[in-house]
Amino acid sequence: VNGSSREGPALVADPIAETVDEPIVFLNEVMARYPDAISFAPGAPNAQHLAQVDVIGALQRFQEHVVSVGGRSPEQAQLALLEYGPSRGLVNDVFADALRRDEHLDVDPEGIVITVGAQEALLIALRTLCDQPGDAVAVVDPSFPGIVGAARFLGLPTIPVPEGPLGVDAMAFEDIVLRERRRGLRVRVLYVAPDFNNPTGTRMDLASRRALLDVARRQGTKLLEDNVYGFTADPAVRLPSLAALDAEGTVVGVRSLAKVAAPGLRIGMLVPGPAGGRAEVRHLARRFAAMKTMVTVNTPPVSQAIAAGLILACGGSLAELGNSRSEFYRENLRLLLEALDRHLGDEDGVTWNRPHGGFFVRLFLDIAADQRLLEFSAQKFKVLWTPMSFFSLTGRHSNEIRLSCSYLDPDEIETGVERLAAFLREVTSPKSCGV
Amino acid sequence: VNGSSREGPALVADPIAETVDEPIVFLNEVMARYPDAISFAPGAPNAQHLAQVDVIGALQRFQEHVVSVGGRSPEQAQLALLEYGPSRGLVNDVFADALRRDEHLDVDPEGIVITVGAQEALLIALRTLCDQPGDAVAVVDPSFPGIVGAARFLGLPTIPVPEGPLGVDAMAFEDIVLRERRRGLRVRVLYVAPDFNNPTGTRMDLASRRALLDVARRQGTKLLEDNVYGFTADPAVRLPSLAALDAEGTVVGVRSLAKVAAPGLRIGMLVPGPAGGRAEVRHLARRFAAMKTMVTVNTPPVSQAIAAGLILACGGSLAELGNSRSEFYRENLRLLLEALDRHLGDEDGVTWNRPHGGFFVRLFLDIAADQRLLEFSAQKFKVLWTPMSFFSLTGRHSNEIRLSCSYLDPDEIETGVERLAAFLREVTSPKSCGV
Repeated sequence: VNGSSREGPALVADPIAETVDEPIVFLNEVMARYPDAISFAPGAPNAQHLAQVDVIGALQRFQEHVVSVGGRSPEQAQLALLEYGPSRGLVNDVFADALRRDEHLDVDPEGIVITVGAQEALLIALRTLCDQPGDAVAVVDPSFPGIVGAARFLGLPTIPVPEGPLGVDAMAFEDIVLRERRRGLRVRVLYVAPDFNNPTGTRMDLASRRALLDVARRQGTKLLEDNVYGFTADPAVRLPSLAALDAEGTVVGVRSLAKVAAPGLRIGMLVPGPAGGRAEVRHLARRFAAMKTMVTVNTPPVSQAIAAGLILACGGSLAELGNSRSEFYRENLRLLLEALDRHLGDEDGVTWNRPHGGFFVRLFLDIAADQRLLEFSAQKFKVLWTPMSFFSLTGRHSNEIRLSCSYLDPDEIETGVERLAAFLREVTSPKSCGV
Repeated sequence: VNGSSREGPALVADPIAETVDEPIVFLNEVMARYPDAISFAPGAPNAQHLAQVDVIGALQRFQEHVVSVGGRSPEQAQLALLEYGPSRGLVNDVFADALRRDEHLDVDPEGIVITVGAQEALLIALRTLCDQPGDAVAVVDPSFPGIVGAARFLGLPTIPVPEGPLGVDAMAFEDIVLRERRRGLRVRVLYVAPDFNNPTGTRMDLASRRALLDVARRQGTKLLEDNVYGFTADPAVRLPSLAALDAEGTVVGVRSLAKVAAPGLRIGMLVPGPAGGRAEVRHLARRFAAMKTMVTVNTPPVSQAIAAGLILACGGSLAELGNSRSEFYRENLRLLLEALDRHLGDEDGVTWNRPHGGFFVRLFLDIAADQRLLEFSAQKFKVLWTPMSFFSLTGRHSNEIRLSCSYLDPDEIETGVERLAAFLREVTSPKSCGV
């Protein structure tokens, strides 16, 4: 492991910002060149779930709702799909109801901003929360590339925060905030995905969540909570989101329909904090909506309507929409972990974590997992995965890979792991020099 | 007129950036309080055109096209609406064909980026073209608020450029570029809408377009061309767009379906330059697509499909789609100008320009047209308009108002101008102190 930047200074954003998607371009290109490879690379939802989505049916369902519940004429409902709409969104009441039902969040529908996917929500949140020179964003390392991309787009400094077995360690995070303050940077936001983080699959337990909230409150740092994989937890053992634990407005919530419903909807939302008296939360809601006018004006009403129609068809619950899919993902994850045990359980030099949900498993190797190794894996063993270095800000994590179980059909997993095991036996055994 | 910032330094962007939509919020609020007022304020397309858009029909039409021309199965076509798609877009071939047909632009379909309305296109273009400290954006003053908002979102300095009767004067612009360079700012982009600019209705003639292109090429400044109102010109007297006059890649084109079809589609596009050998244009295309991944990842495929379906239904031509609407707008504009002549032709202290297309007429008064005056106009005369100061960066233009003819039905225009004339007679006559 190259440790040179382990405790190093903040990474100042690259002003050119064109390298962010290069690893993804490389990955897509490798996938295209080896179409018969089994790929543990894509973190996208499974296509069989997407095939079940009735786009036109969902649109019609929402339009009927607007007429029957909203008291509009069919012509008015149709016009609302085609006009400029309010920048905060058209379907906020449906989404606020779902948050109340699913996460016991009491939020003001007018405070929510419906965004073009989680990505726009992240961009708007960072721009709003980091508006002074010296403001910085902390991100867990390795991290979801979207948050790094949003920070780069805005030229914001990004502070990597190491991740423990229970996610962000509150005390370690507080030390980083204080260290950066001495260096002249204010950590205004920590991006955190407490449930089965992409790319590591890490989940924060309840005590870690509470401790992180305490530190954030004490240090005046907002927690930008991305909860996109929360729905994959077994309903019996779900944990409250950070937003649900926050009565004061420390947490800004980002939610997305990408995995629960379909990424192509491009529907996310930004939740400024709990409803109630706090002027700061109301002020933030207004600023989010104003910022949105500078990015996309408003989210395409047709997409909003389809998303809302899908939620209404599940009794107004996003969780219910997710439940029909989460069992599939848990089963795929179980198959993946069992196959890893079976084929790699005795292999020296390979270990992995054992998430109880989400799309991802993190493998630790005793060699560097780089683009060359991926190419070799694709060519000789017909199996693909993602180098963890693609997600890292620090140069650490070069000996790790991310496996995703979401995109594959269940019957591909066993064969995929067989190939992966053969590949890893070749490259990680001490005698090997396959590459 | 307060001339203090006439030739003043660049306006450094307000880092808070929450004031951009305040005038719009005020305007909407006044409109809501006076529902029986006739409003020349909204620059939105007429609702009767929107009512003609068959959303589901257009979607189905594009899906059939993907199957019959693209050779996909209906299931694949359906899946493409729901998956993540390429960040540059799904319907680029349809749009590139339309540009070729309508503007004689030879562009590479892979180079176009389909954006969430023109606003996202502006944001991506500014971020890509202004990536070094000291890079600045020039905008005509008064200006479309979207470009100012995008610059503020990015914290970019904005340089106001005065507008003559033929739009941006090339020599005056070159002087500004040179002046700013001496002050340490590089003007990397000029935002320009050559056809019936919002808010002033100004149109550049062919010689002005060519002269501006020459200066931009010489100074290494990109022209960011927003051509949203070009379709409203009489087909017999249309002028080539700046992009169509540019063989070298000086012009970055922004196009939008907001006025031609429907703003709620939120479909725009970014055109990096002409197809052909120029490496710089190809490089720019790749950077635009990479930047897009940091803003919204990709534009909602359903919206793209509806937009493409509407274009296909008009023989693959955006201009053809626009022609069915442009006659209506020219007629409304003619009614507005005739009514102004009839009711205000003899009035001292009121003059206006006479655009041949677009949505807007610019009135010059001999008093300040501010929010208080608008309130008075709404309350006593039941007529609304937009203070030109809402669009100004410089504090000039305080004695002007913008009238829009697009949103009103033809039979409202006469009554609206009667009311406006009564209002103006009261406030602009020397003896009056109506406010």
